[in-house]
Amino acid sequence: MILISNDDGYQAKGIQFLINIVKDYDDVLVCAPDDARSGFACAFSATKPLVLTHRHQEKGVDVWSCNGTPVDCVKMALAELCKEKPRMIIGGINHGDNASVNTHYSGTMGVTLEGCMKYIPSVAFSICDYSADADFRPLETYIRDIVQRVLREGLPKGVCLNVNFPKAETFKGVRLCRMSYGTWTNEVSKCHHPRGYDYWWMVGSYLNDEPEAEDTDRWALDNGYVAITPTRIDVTAYEAFGQLKDYEK
Amino acid sequence: MILISNDDGYQAKGIQFLINIVKDYDDVLVCAPDDARSGFACAFSATKPLVLTHRHQEKGVDVWSCNGTPVDCVKMALAELCKEKPRMIIGGINHGDNASVNTHYSGTMGVTLEGCMKYIPSVAFSICDYSADADFRPLETYIRDIVQRVLREGLPKGVCLNVNFPKAETFKGVRLCRMSYGTWTNEVSKCHHPRGYDYWWMVGSYLNDEPEAEDTDRWALDNGYVAITPTRIDVTAYEAFGQLKDYEK
Repeated sequence: MILISNDDGYQAKGIQFLINIVKDYDDVLVCAPDDARSGFACAFSATKPLVLTHRHQEKGVDVWSCNGTPVDCVKMALAELCKEKPRMIIGGINHGDNASVNTHYSGTMGVTLEGCMKYIPSVAFSICDYSADADFRPLETYIRDIVQRVLREGLPKGVCLNVNFPKAETFKGVRLCRMSYGTWTNEVSKCHHPRGYDYWWMVGSYLNDEPEAEDTDRWALDNGYVAITPTRIDVTAYEAFGQLKDYEK
Repeated sequence: MILISNDDGYQAKGIQFLINIVKDYDDVLVCAPDDARSGFACAFSATKPLVLTHRHQEKGVDVWSCNGTPVDCVKMALAELCKEKPRMIIGGINHGDNASVNTHYSGTMGVTLEGCMKYIPSVAFSICDYSADADFRPLETYIRDIVQRVLREGLPKGVCLNVNFPKAETFKGVRLCRMSYGTWTNEVSKCHHPRGYDYWWMVGSYLNDEPEAEDTDRWALDNGYVAITPTRIDVTAYEAFGQLKDYEK
């Protein structure tokens, strides 16, 4: 079976689109947040009682929601809903890209990293289009290719795929990319409450810190390519051990 | 100046202990969650209005709280409270370790990764002791050494330090470690609500998947060493590009 979750909530169009594709390859189960959980990263609910709700069955696929985070959805599905260990976990399709440093904030990547930490081949799909009715049709053949390949070959231990699509009708190709460095700027917007106090909204503009680097996910997306960033759960900076060896004693 | 945050909340003992040490080296500002936010990872608040509250001034250090996540605290402090770019950001001292895969769930690491993504030298301190009145005194000389060294030398671009201390009165030494592979099991505990429905708490037991590996953070902690895991924000699995090259087209 294949487990699908996301961070946009069980009603998001991206999840419906995925169901229709993935059901051709195996049994499918959906367990996704009961509402949008963008920006939830790998957060889990340490102090909140979690509830599962069976929402509907669609083309043989049971769709469940959970009142927790994307990671909670995966943990709950694995513990309580999946009759067997899934052959694959899919996050998405996220409305909005998860390239560059966004990977650290992404609940879609939370789903995928959680699967990867459980040694289950896991893939995140995202599109550079925030609109609720984004056109996913150009993605279909690419998603079919990737899902079939992962089911057939698996993925290296501790590695998942972060797949990002440009907003386009056709794509120039598919590239394996590294995560680009980028910086969010002007991240907070101050407002004044009628009761007299200040409050802030998280907003921000993304700045590509290496726009010329053609091996990055951000460059691929900006130039019409599908970007696949193989992503690891081992975040050790091995290359820094030499420079930091004086810390040992 | 040095910015301190955590995921246990501004009132946690760990933050007080850090203030007393770090104020010897520069001006200090604290901006931490208004309550415990364990397990919040790199989550930020995409849809919640954020409020800052000045809690008190202690030994010349302004202590602020924010009603958001640990990452929100850093973003808000950088945007609204810090008069200059901090020379260093510190997360902790966390009550409970953040070794192995816990790094992905940790709000303390969220603080530190957020600093690192802003190219500010950043360090997380955690101790293998969940009690609110954990004894931090054995950590002091080690924290002083690390803070002084980071202020003097900086850290490599895109690399932060995840420092974990065993629960002990003395330590055998300090080791640079890689993140160990481990798995959380039995993660949900089912309960029955008086109103007739089921709900679940996130709990779980950690299982070390490579207990013999002496180069890991988990091994170091289990054997009485301070574990420093240099941690990268570039999560690209470069080593997998060869195996995955057929995905390109």
